[in-house]
Amino acid sequence: MTIKDMLGRSGVVSKEEALRRILEHAAVSVPGIENISIHESLGRVLGEDIDAPADVPDFVRSTMDGYAVRSADTFGATESMPALLAVVGESVMGELPERPVSKGECMKIYTGGALPPGADAVVMFEHTQPVDLDSIEVTKPVGPLENVIQIGDDLRRGERVLCKGRLIRPQDMAALASLGITSIPVLERPRVAIISTGNEIVPSDGPQPRGRVRDSNSYYLEGLVIQHGGLPVRMGIVRDDPAQLRGVVRSALEQCHMVVITGGSSVGSFDYTEKVIDSFGPPGVIVHGVSVKPGKPLIAAWAGSVPVFGLPGHPVAVGISFDLFVRPVLLKMSGEVPSPALEGLSPVRTVRARLQRGISSGPGREEYVRVVLERKDGELQARPVFGASGLISTLVKADGIVVVPADSIGIEAGREVEVRLF
Amino acid sequence: MTIKDMLGRSGVVSKEEALRRILEHAAVSVPGIENISIHESLGRVLGEDIDAPADVPDFVRSTMDGYAVRSADTFGATESMPALLAVVGESVMGELPERPVSKGECMKIYTGGALPPGADAVVMFEHTQPVDLDSIEVTKPVGPLENVIQIGDDLRRGERVLCKGRLIRPQDMAALASLGITSIPVLERPRVAIISTGNEIVPSDGPQPRGRVRDSNSYYLEGLVIQHGGLPVRMGIVRDDPAQLRGVVRSALEQCHMVVITGGSSVGSFDYTEKVIDSFGPPGVIVHGVSVKPGKPLIAAWAGSVPVFGLPGHPVAVGISFDLFVRPVLLKMSGEVPSPALEGLSPVRTVRARLQRGISSGPGREEYVRVVLERKDGELQARPVFGASGLISTLVKADGIVVVPADSIGIEAGREVEVRLF
Repeated sequence: MTIKDMLGRSGVVSKEEALRRILEHAAVSVPGIENISIHESLGRVLGEDIDAPADVPDFVRSTMDGYAVRSADTFGATESMPALLAVVGESVMGELPERPVSKGECMKIYTGGALPPGADAVVMFEHTQPVDLDSIEVTKPVGPLENVIQIGDDLRRGERVLCKGRLIRPQDMAALASLGITSIPVLERPRVAIISTGNEIVPSDGPQPRGRVRDSNSYYLEGLVIQHGGLPVRMGIVRDDPAQLRGVVRSALEQCHMVVITGGSSVGSFDYTEKVIDSFGPPGVIVHGVSVKPGKPLIAAWAGSVPVFGLPGHPVAVGISFDLFVRPVLLKMSGEVPSPALEGLSPVRTVRARLQRGISSGPGREEYVRVVLERKDGELQARPVFGASGLISTLVKADGIVVVPADSIGIEAGREVEVRLF
Repeated sequence: MTIKDMLGRSGVVSKEEALRRILEHAAVSVPGIENISIHESLGRVLGEDIDAPADVPDFVRSTMDGYAVRSADTFGATESMPALLAVVGESVMGELPERPVSKGECMKIYTGGALPPGADAVVMFEHTQPVDLDSIEVTKPVGPLENVIQIGDDLRRGERVLCKGRLIRPQDMAALASLGITSIPVLERPRVAIISTGNEIVPSDGPQPRGRVRDSNSYYLEGLVIQHGGLPVRMGIVRDDPAQLRGVVRSALEQCHMVVITGGSSVGSFDYTEKVIDSFGPPGVIVHGVSVKPGKPLIAAWAGSVPVFGLPGHPVAVGISFDLFVRPVLLKMSGEVPSPALEGLSPVRTVRARLQRGISSGPGREEYVRVVLERKDGELQARPVFGASGLISTLVKADGIVVVPADSIGIEAGREVEVRLF
């Protein structure tokens, strides 16, 4: 009995079972590491753990505008019994004061300025009053270390600042810059081969003979791949010809970390698409057919360590299949380690809205319904967009998707639903 | 009385009042239009309305695998009384069949194939059975236009497909490609000048003398600007010197659509920062001081039609100020027209979590508290990260922000709160 017999590949499986098989095979075959400029690093995945090479700050800094003091000199000070201190100068921004502050003395200081030797706290201007040019009265005591940042308070030398797998955010760029790290080790983006198939498909940037349609799925996939951290590699359009498809897939497998094929919408071509994909195993095809609508005729395969997806040709199905099955694999390959706290939550923005019209659905399959959001009667409402899954216009008009669960035969009008924005 | 006296610019104002003044001045001074390749268009803002130059599809297509028929020939057909039809060939993918289907005839067809003249519907394979090589029986009737997409059903020639101001999504790329539009008119990204000030600041890619700190705010802002569709223009670090700042701001105003200055954290330098910014009016400074924490010492000004922001130097305050005041202006300048249905909803992903520890806050100001998300006791919990707003480490550790409203003195532990992820 082969692995495929065991997996029962010929049968349509549930979304959960398909995902289980797919993720079981999806090793974190992370691409290599490349060093890029910090200016290019937003949204990339960190390739190494980053430890602080030095303390930040590496000198004691004030967090207020005021006077650097020896805190003991201010103990017991009040409005009626202020502490008198001699002002011995100013801590100049960007310089380390050499003159110390001795008992009974203080030094003017600004936020971010360096504390002079001897001082251990800062009194805010508001709690002082000038006596003459060279002395002030402190009207409120400060404790040791009050209003100061100590050496290493922000980042301590050797401390783990960012972990490998971190998706770099703007504030992470700030942290790297503060440590002087401006060449950033990031993981290479997974290269995803995109192949359109079908004798009826012509390139989008050329003329369109009658009876043909322009390639749109490869652009849809290109956008989705970029949006999810991958690097699209366009492999062009392949005719309904097993030998040609085999050659293009072989070339894709040599260059890329993942292959996504769309279309070959006819029964005949879809059959040979599966055979061609399977021939690059083991393990070959692990899923063929999922009980979701649209998107049922999904093929998922592994050619050695490289995942190969065969998506149905209808654009709506391309989007659903990508979201459900390709995205999780791409995320795993990207090396990104999402916050464990957020696991299980929708990775995309969702809103709640009231369903304007009922949706009916066959039991036993998850159904994905496009909706347009409208504000009516002071609330957010979702209007289902019906129409064949071959119509790109429905995707363009829609603001998001409502999911009808597999164990339901529909959702009544007036119910509140969760809309996944796209 | 000048406009500034009327505005009472010297006083600290509420967040709402600051935003009102800022947005009142924020004209949609949209940059120009540039044509870019469709491959670069994801996330850009469409610069022109796009109307369909032709019908999509421009021929009648099947949405099923089956037989193209004259629907009238199938009327009344049942399992026991099937309709007998002669198969006169196959509609080859990518070609327009020349042979018509006459009364009593049908033609094999696949999903996406072109209907032959005479046929007006498609019977699915499932509802037919072969009789011999040249004829089939139809066991279920189809109505006119059943299982077909008519000319223009997806996009009708002249129809508005995408509106100017649309943020281009992957499915929009698909629609453009299907129309053969692969050079896309998009709005230029607003150029945002980023200026760091302070004698204590040194470049991040060089050595760090004692008493100095590395520039991190300009990288934080660079990331934020890119994230929100702007094009960062780094103007370098300016010393605490009004003349130098004036020169750099003048140069920035010549090149950019917006100027953002951070720091000059000392009282003295902040005063002259305001004077320098104001000198490029009218209208000059319209806000100085907002009742939010952190982020109180915000300066917002207009130099003619160019907004100039002076943000406090603390990184946490930079992030909050950007989110509250710079982001809405940048969005307006970008020319993006967000879905009106989503107006008023959080533009970022939010999650609900239980607050692990209470937060106290002064009344009369909105307070922004960084939190780390943790999954505990089967629920999502938010742990406040306390620490001076000068500490980048707190931003790096945090998963998001909780807002304590201005009319509140805090939030009790155990309450469910909304966390804005960042």
